[in-house]
Amino acid sequence: MYLSALLTSAGINIAVCVVIFSLYSVLRKQPRFINVYFGQRLAQVNLRRHDPFCFERLVPSAGWILRAWEATGDQIYSAGGLDAVVFLRLIVFSIRIFSLAATICLFLVLPLNYFGREMEHKMIPAESLEVFSIANVEQGSRRLWAHCLALYIITLSTCALLYYEYRNITKMRLSYITQSLSNPSHFTVLVRGIPWSPTESYSETVAKFFTTYYASSYLSHQMICQSGTVQKLMHDAGKMYKMLKTTTADQHCARTLLRCGFCGGTTTSFKILAIEAGSDKTRSDFEISNRRNTECAAALVFFRTRYAALVASQSLQSPNPMKWVTDRAPDPKDVYWTNLGLPYRLLWIRKIAILVVSMLFVAFFLVPVTLTQSLVNLDKLQNTFPFLRGVLKRKFMSQLATGYLPSVILMLFLYIAPPVMLLFSTMEGAISRSGRKMSACMKLMAFMIWNVFFANILTGTIIKNLVGAVAERLSDPKNIPNELAVAIPTTATFFMTYVLTSGWASLAFELLQPLALICNFIYRYGLRNKDETTYGTWTFPYHTEVPRVVLFGVMGFTCSVMAPLILPFLLVYFFLAYLVYKNQILNVYVTNYQTGGLYWPTIHNATIFSLVITQVIASGVFGIKKSTVALSFTFPLIICTLLFNQYCRQRFLPVFKSNAAKVLIEMDWQDEQSGKMEEIHRKLQSEYCQFKLAAMNPGGIVQPTDCNNPVDGVLEDPGDTTAGKRPAQLSGIWVGHSSPEIREMEL
Amino acid sequence: MYLSALLTSAGINIAVCVVIFSLYSVLRKQPRFINVYFGQRLAQVNLRRHDPFCFERLVPSAGWILRAWEATGDQIYSAGGLDAVVFLRLIVFSIRIFSLAATICLFLVLPLNYFGREMEHKMIPAESLEVFSIANVEQGSRRLWAHCLALYIITLSTCALLYYEYRNITKMRLSYITQSLSNPSHFTVLVRGIPWSPTESYSETVAKFFTTYYASSYLSHQMICQSGTVQKLMHDAGKMYKMLKTTTADQHCARTLLRCGFCGGTTTSFKILAIEAGSDKTRSDFEISNRRNTECAAALVFFRTRYAALVASQSLQSPNPMKWVTDRAPDPKDVYWTNLGLPYRLLWIRKIAILVVSMLFVAFFLVPVTLTQSLVNLDKLQNTFPFLRGVLKRKFMSQLATGYLPSVILMLFLYIAPPVMLLFSTMEGAISRSGRKMSACMKLMAFMIWNVFFANILTGTIIKNLVGAVAERLSDPKNIPNELAVAIPTTATFFMTYVLTSGWASLAFELLQPLALICNFIYRYGLRNKDETTYGTWTFPYHTEVPRVVLFGVMGFTCSVMAPLILPFLLVYFFLAYLVYKNQILNVYVTNYQTGGLYWPTIHNATIFSLVITQVIASGVFGIKKSTVALSFTFPLIICTLLFNQYCRQRFLPVFKSNAAKVLIEMDWQDEQSGKMEEIHRKLQSEYCQFKLAAMNPGGIVQPTDCNNPVDGVLEDPGDTTAGKRPAQLSGIWVGHSSPEIREMEL
Repeated sequence: MYLSALLTSAGINIAVCVVIFSLYSVLRKQPRFINVYFGQRLAQVNLRRHDPFCFERLVPSAGWILRAWEATGDQIYSAGGLDAVVFLRLIVFSIRIFSLAATICLFLVLPLNYFGREMEHKMIPAESLEVFSIANVEQGSRRLWAHCLALYIITLSTCALLYYEYRNITKMRLSYITQSLSNPSHFTVLVRGIPWSPTESYSETVAKFFTTYYASSYLSHQMICQSGTVQKLMHDAGKMYKMLKTTTADQHCARTLLRCGFCGGTTTSFKILAIEAGSDKTRSDFEISNRRNTECAAALVFFRTRYAALVASQSLQSPNPMKWVTDRAPDPKDVYWTNLGLPYRLLWIRKIAILVVSMLFVAFFLVPVTLTQSLVNLDKLQNTFPFLRGVLKRKFMSQLATGYLPSVILMLFLYIAPPVMLLFSTMEGAISRSGRKMSACMKLMAFMIWNVFFANILTGTIIKNLVGAVAERLSDPKNIPNELAVAIPTTATFFMTYVLTSGWASLAFELLQPLALICNFIYRYGLRNKDETTYGTWTFPYHTEVPRVVLFGVMGFTCSVMAPLILPFLLVYFFLAYLVYKNQILNVYVTNYQTGGLYWPTIHNATIFSLVITQVIASGVFGIKKSTVALSFTFPLIICTLLFNQYCRQRFLPVFKSNAAKVLIEMDWQDEQSGKMEEIHRKLQSEYCQFKLAAMNPGGIVQPTDCNNPVDGVLEDPGDTTAGKRPAQLSGIWVGHSSPEIREMEL
Repeated sequence: MYLSALLTSAGINIAVCVVIFSLYSVLRKQPRFINVYFGQRLAQVNLRRHDPFCFERLVPSAGWILRAWEATGDQIYSAGGLDAVVFLRLIVFSIRIFSLAATICLFLVLPLNYFGREMEHKMIPAESLEVFSIANVEQGSRRLWAHCLALYIITLSTCALLYYEYRNITKMRLSYITQSLSNPSHFTVLVRGIPWSPTESYSETVAKFFTTYYASSYLSHQMICQSGTVQKLMHDAGKMYKMLKTTTADQHCARTLLRCGFCGGTTTSFKILAIEAGSDKTRSDFEISNRRNTECAAALVFFRTRYAALVASQSLQSPNPMKWVTDRAPDPKDVYWTNLGLPYRLLWIRKIAILVVSMLFVAFFLVPVTLTQSLVNLDKLQNTFPFLRGVLKRKFMSQLATGYLPSVILMLFLYIAPPVMLLFSTMEGAISRSGRKMSACMKLMAFMIWNVFFANILTGTIIKNLVGAVAERLSDPKNIPNELAVAIPTTATFFMTYVLTSGWASLAFELLQPLALICNFIYRYGLRNKDETTYGTWTFPYHTEVPRVVLFGVMGFTCSVMAPLILPFLLVYFFLAYLVYKNQILNVYVTNYQTGGLYWPTIHNATIFSLVITQVIASGVFGIKKSTVALSFTFPLIICTLLFNQYCRQRFLPVFKSNAAKVLIEMDWQDEQSGKMEEIHRKLQSEYCQFKLAAMNPGGIVQPTDCNNPVDGVLEDPGDTTAGKRPAQLSGIWVGHSSPEIREMEL
């Protein structure tokens, strides 16, 4: 591929981006798309604009860029939580490190590559891209010290920056924990594997165990119920009813959803059924008798202090490690209720099964990747399949096929992966939504680094040789650095187009939210629903975006010294990403749950991994180029990088794994001194609410008994004095704010 | 190698064993060797026999075998603790499983192997050993179903037995914990990484932290002091003084060691110095001022309840994970004081360094192994080095060289490994003696399985082919099962001789204790010391014996189906081992510390590993023999074995990692109800004693202030009301019982 083809590709992408960005700036001004582009704002302030139509609304503008640029860290934190801050730190980190890398590599390494061997240079646009890579440096050249120096500078500054970021994010996490004083999850422990007893219900067993062994700190508990067929049907019916109701109900009525049931709208059969069931005496009898049967061997146990909950969650409770398994409970909004009731003794086998299935999934994915890569090497394929020659005679077609199509195909295939990985993480038994996303994020990261990065290098090499002997040569571990060293400078071309298409274009699409637009359209015109506040909102898709940004980081690091031409494109990507994601976090996505910065250790490990891969590849290149000095200087670098990683694991990681006792004890004191503890205890027992929609009667008013601790009615816990006193403001939160956690969709 | 050579080797070994066993039965009757062969009894009851000389003492007898056989589990438990029981369970487990395997393989598999292909059989003694192995079965033979069936039976019964053993040992461990009511380590937490403060001493910092955050449960603490040069010199001087004193003192006086200082024996310069130092006022002043300087950033913190200590040891204490690092404290006798004071922030780098060094050590060891294996393949070497032919013409020489010498050489080389690995484990920073042994045990297990098992197979294959291309073929992971499958039946010969020499002979030497005999001799005649009670005792060398028994297990499993002729020899080994080790545990070794059954998870993992290796090799053999049915039946077996292992990890392992809260809370209740808690608290603070010999004045009487909490004099803890009240019976334990923990030597 020539530089001109690359520039064509860049041109196309710049044009596409400019068009989409302009389109976005117009669309976001239209009131009917307010819930697509301002979901976050809607959730926060319930705002509603009735702007009159004016010409200005059709003129593209760049105001959003300015506003995104000016947004401070505090604004991001309040809109997207610590996870959003961490994600933006990742982008800022990438910008910093690749600015430095670009400076060094473009001004020191690139000229050395270009004049690396004696040859007649053509005009620069007609120059092959390989001329700009390390492949152009002669064997045994003394100029390789520059590459080695660049590698040293990049590694050392990356490590320094990583340390600095890790330390800052650890501090942020600590202050996130200390600031969330009213977080009920700090007082709560999830207990699974409650032993079955023929004489007692699970709930009685739990009460007995904790009043015996944790007498001083045990507050109360709440059983997890099976989300069985009845509940599911009720849930679905409630959803359907609500949807149909709002389409037929008055617009005025829809806005004040709370009182809508009383205005006597059209009475659907769903409504009749629900009212009948609600008013009937038989219903509650049925429910109480049913609860005993639907109780799972799992419960949420509330403690009087944070420290007591921490202690209970860390200890091995019983001599049988499969019984009384304790875990930190997730936030109320973060709980993934369906998985809480899974029998604990089967979880380990689920995890293993999912691991195997994930690996098979990754293996299956090599097929489209090979197909994609074969397009880049079209000129080689032409020799094998002569009929292609006619099609590719036109220069533009050829450039399109080699520069643009491969990435587009790959991107389309890659769209299947996130939902599948999310499904896997669900089946694995994640107890929280954020944990599920985290797990999917890690799977996707491995998936993308393997399928996009390595597989492209390997398949590229295989097709290039068309002998299939590569697999055999690769089987010797010693050959891998050499094979990578040969492949990277040539595959760098593909990575550049990938940055242009998948990178830039994905940002543009992220901004435009085509899927949300289509959904909105269907919802509004297909279902004839005019109430826009009831339309669903999204949470930030960390599980797709973190791996994507990390993947570009991997590409950046590995190509930086070998083929530095990629760096300007990457820098543009990261700058755009900074603006786009900041805008999206501020305006589009709601934050119902967060991990509290748990993504950073994963990001850190991925960065270290890419550094080491870079160094291994560099050592391979230095070996091939017969520069023993550079080669011997690279090995200490690898060892130092690994030692640095180990140090960070010791120094920072435990804070992300567990809460420090000191911090929680001090928070407990603070609450006790300010007298807030009582209030927290009172609130605590109504915060976790398993069946929300079933608890809503047709008028949309919350029935306290439904949403409350199912135990209360059955057991009469002595410590549980607040039964039935569901605070109004709490039910208000999720009814008034168009209940984003219910209708939230995972993209 | 022919069957006759094997039988020659067996004959030699049987003769050696019988001679040594008889010698042992004579030597153990001699009163002067009482401290070599009855160290355990001496330590327990301080017995002293003055048998008159009689002829019976020179007649070999088998009474000890009977007594060892009749010893019950309770006797073993009281003599050797839970670790000894676990070790004997390993041997019993091996006997059971290999009895079953021998029955199946000798009566089902062996005949099928022998008549595996149509050939003229010679006389059985002149038959090559390969005829009895699976190598003799024809390709595509239908008889391979028998091997597959045998593999199934062995795997399933091993798993069932492993489950049963793991469950039993878990129960034993739990009862071991509940029975050790007065164990001070349950109340104690080791704190490392105490932050340095310019205004306070470490001790003050600790007191402040724990009285603040653990006000209700904190009892007191004890700082760890640097075991610097002064302490070391004092320790050595005390030791030397004691040794010289006892050589010159009266025999009568030596028996009543406690009052020996007062009887006015010869006054050595050591004695004068010690008395001067002890009586001088300057000494205590010097010590108090010195303590501030010698305090390490580590302390033992005592809590009021076991549960409080458990909780404190599990939590992350401070937001900085390198500060206030808590761990469960080892038993007082188990503490490895020198390592407690190591700066915590450097421990991780020590561990990594030791890991690297260990790996290099293992690599270096391939040299003697290759040398050894080259002897087995002498006939092949003869072709390369013709001068050998003359030496080996004699049949006996040849048989000796192939059947006996290789194992002897290997065994001698292997004697270097245990002390080196123990040194590595010390440098790694183990905080307890038992932990150090455990760590050395794991290193040695990996070392032996790699160097004896795999390296012999591989080097055997390399020499056989004399092309050196094996390494290349092995680099393809798919080839490994095939290579192993080819190598195992042939290398089985070497394993058989290894069982005969290293196995049987090592047991005989273990019984005879040649090293202890020599040491005893030097001590008695070289140093002219006649007091036998002061001579050192040994603790059981689990770190060498567990890997050895496990290694024979690995050989047994891998050879069982392939070359079943090894099984009878192995069974004899295990039977002998059962008797010998039982005898040694009852009579020879003292038990100052134990892990409480922590060896079992390691043994379990090693057994699973050998099962999987067996299955992989079997699948390789079935592949080579083109028996697709047997091959496809083997794969589910591998998966099931791995799943079974995973299940056991879930079900049993956590009990070995941490104590269950329920158990400890119940123990606390028990003590509180019986009113023993006060007494335990009182004792607690004097149990841990860092500088024992320095604390002993020349008369052998303990000075309470020396051995006590160094903090007491400095800090005046409010909770520490028992300062200076060192219980007499405690000091009595280690003075009266010839203080085995001081003079204990690691073999």
